[in-house]
Amino acid sequence: MIYLDNAATTRPNRAAVLRAQTFTEENFFNPSALYGGAFAVFSELGRARESILTRIADPQKFELIFTSGGTESDNLAIFSSARRGNAVTTTGEHAAVERAFNELKNRGVEPRFAPVRPDGTVDEEALLSLVDEKTTLVSVIHVSNETGGINDIAGLARRVKEKIPRCIFMSDGVQAFGKIPVRLTSDIDLYAVSAHKIGGLKGTGALIKRKGLALSPLIFGGGQEKGLRSGTENVLGALTFSYAAESKFATLPEDGERLKGYRELLFSELDHTLFTRLSPGNGSPYILTLSAKGVRGEVLSRMLWDGGVVVGTGSACSSKHPYSRVLKACGYGEEVLGGVLRVSFSPETTEEELHAAAKAFNQAVKQFKEKL
Amino acid sequence: MIYLDNAATTRPNRAAVLRAQTFTEENFFNPSALYGGAFAVFSELGRARESILTRIADPQKFELIFTSGGTESDNLAIFSSARRGNAVTTTGEHAAVERAFNELKNRGVEPRFAPVRPDGTVDEEALLSLVDEKTTLVSVIHVSNETGGINDIAGLARRVKEKIPRCIFMSDGVQAFGKIPVRLTSDIDLYAVSAHKIGGLKGTGALIKRKGLALSPLIFGGGQEKGLRSGTENVLGALTFSYAAESKFATLPEDGERLKGYRELLFSELDHTLFTRLSPGNGSPYILTLSAKGVRGEVLSRMLWDGGVVVGTGSACSSKHPYSRVLKACGYGEEVLGGVLRVSFSPETTEEELHAAAKAFNQAVKQFKEKL
Repeated sequence: MIYLDNAATTRPNRAAVLRAQTFTEENFFNPSALYGGAFAVFSELGRARESILTRIADPQKFELIFTSGGTESDNLAIFSSARRGNAVTTTGEHAAVERAFNELKNRGVEPRFAPVRPDGTVDEEALLSLVDEKTTLVSVIHVSNETGGINDIAGLARRVKEKIPRCIFMSDGVQAFGKIPVRLTSDIDLYAVSAHKIGGLKGTGALIKRKGLALSPLIFGGGQEKGLRSGTENVLGALTFSYAAESKFATLPEDGERLKGYRELLFSELDHTLFTRLSPGNGSPYILTLSAKGVRGEVLSRMLWDGGVVVGTGSACSSKHPYSRVLKACGYGEEVLGGVLRVSFSPETTEEELHAAAKAFNQAVKQFKEKL
Repeated sequence: MIYLDNAATTRPNRAAVLRAQTFTEENFFNPSALYGGAFAVFSELGRARESILTRIADPQKFELIFTSGGTESDNLAIFSSARRGNAVTTTGEHAAVERAFNELKNRGVEPRFAPVRPDGTVDEEALLSLVDEKTTLVSVIHVSNETGGINDIAGLARRVKEKIPRCIFMSDGVQAFGKIPVRLTSDIDLYAVSAHKIGGLKGTGALIKRKGLALSPLIFGGGQEKGLRSGTENVLGALTFSYAAESKFATLPEDGERLKGYRELLFSELDHTLFTRLSPGNGSPYILTLSAKGVRGEVLSRMLWDGGVVVGTGSACSSKHPYSRVLKACGYGEEVLGGVLRVSFSPETTEEELHAAAKAFNQAVKQFKEKL
């Protein structure tokens, strides 16, 4: 199997899972209990928290809250920050941000959506023009999950703060964390990350927040995560997340360079009369979004599956809709939107796999067209 | 190690975890993707959902939403149901319900708390007298996590509905599910359960809801769980939950009978000049709450830990407070509250372990008192 749907989810890092398993087999205690074994679990959770946080932020200035995933992190950040006036985001967001923004209408907050460019990044001037005295929150996705386009969140955060200093700036960093170099600046208040996109387990994520920023919990109870996210901690998930991140960050720059080369190699081997490219050259090395005109992406994806090549059709999280909302917002017409394939890599991807995948992609489209 | 803190968390069922691991090693796909492997994951999730649900409810009349745990399930049920007027609960609830009810004040809903009896169960007449025309929600814990006392939720739900038919009735079933016989009646609208109390993993739970009842999500996004709880599914957690439940329910009645005997055996071997019993005889067979007068429960718990016996001091989820809020509400004074030990069993508990534990408990208290 050649697995090229790593933006949907990654194969869990086996070594990370095994390492964390001592906490399901021996030290399985509830970290809130008061005896020695429970303290050991609590303390390893703290170590994991610090380890993940320091990969991208100064632990003197930021702190980390474990959540059940990127979606919960986005929702916690948004509903906590946008409580009156208006809130500004982009048309290029993941469903977790887009749907939460639409829910704001029911809570008396006006959501505003800035347009994106064909590469999925936001039109910065348009975004800033939507920000005014009544804006309480600005949310911009760091790396587009649909195109791999990268937003300059540090620059945008600075400009937003220059205009409205008390406005909260957040970013969905799910496709950036562990993949591209990230360093949170003091203008960024909140940053959402997910474990299962980098070799962790589904059902774990985190929200990184600037120290001193007040948060209103979504979930109340036993007071875990400093009262900001109650519920017995997902110990296995949190520890696997930190061990998987350790491994990803150890080779992050080299992996990025190599995958950028692979991404270009794959595209160069495709039949350009069949495939057009939607991902920008300066985007994430981990994502190459293509479109095969006149072909249905999901049919292609199933044909490729039968041939042992696993590739997605775009955000797995919005697969119930016929076309990608985000790619539509990028300005593409139905012919392009119908034939979208999102090829997404991992550091485990090999050059041989890419050659084989390119061949399989070309053949599948030809085969599909011959059947018409 | 003699582990007797199973109400805080249980040792994950190794066979269940191993069985679910094919979904972290081979079929690790995102269940929302559109190719064959992803459908297989989605379909196994559906099987797990049905399997857990049918243990306690008619799948024609109820449905199940996977969540990140009992706390999230309680919060989702409460914030969705109590949107105006008043909401009635008991002073014997887990922190997940109690804190969410207190948060209702900030949302324009009046929380009302009915008193509990010394065994932790609610005073039914007092509860019903708090229910009026403006009551939108009644929430009663099924099995007290502090005493093991069992509320007659079917009877209470019926009486609440007779008084106010449109009022929603929910129950926190975290300490009941997989431990005592449960069958949801049509008067019960919502029922919260947790995986890690019955051999599943921390970070997984479910909310069982009556079909036709509308729910307002806490978390918006990709539309998973029929749009009621977005976020990539915690596949490992959900499947381990269903496999662990399968195993628990296979021997539930025998386990309960045996543990009831063990509970009484343990108590009979304790020095009754040192220990008083707070748990009722007709409560959950899985919980025996004791108090050693003049001793600090947490000190005792640490002494016992050093001797290889693991026992808690009450709800691990509220351990930051000096005394148990619930046991205080039961009417106990500081002398009793300070010396609380909660002994909680699992089907793996053996008779030999109980003899050894009783001896250790008696010795620890004596040793503590000699040091004074």
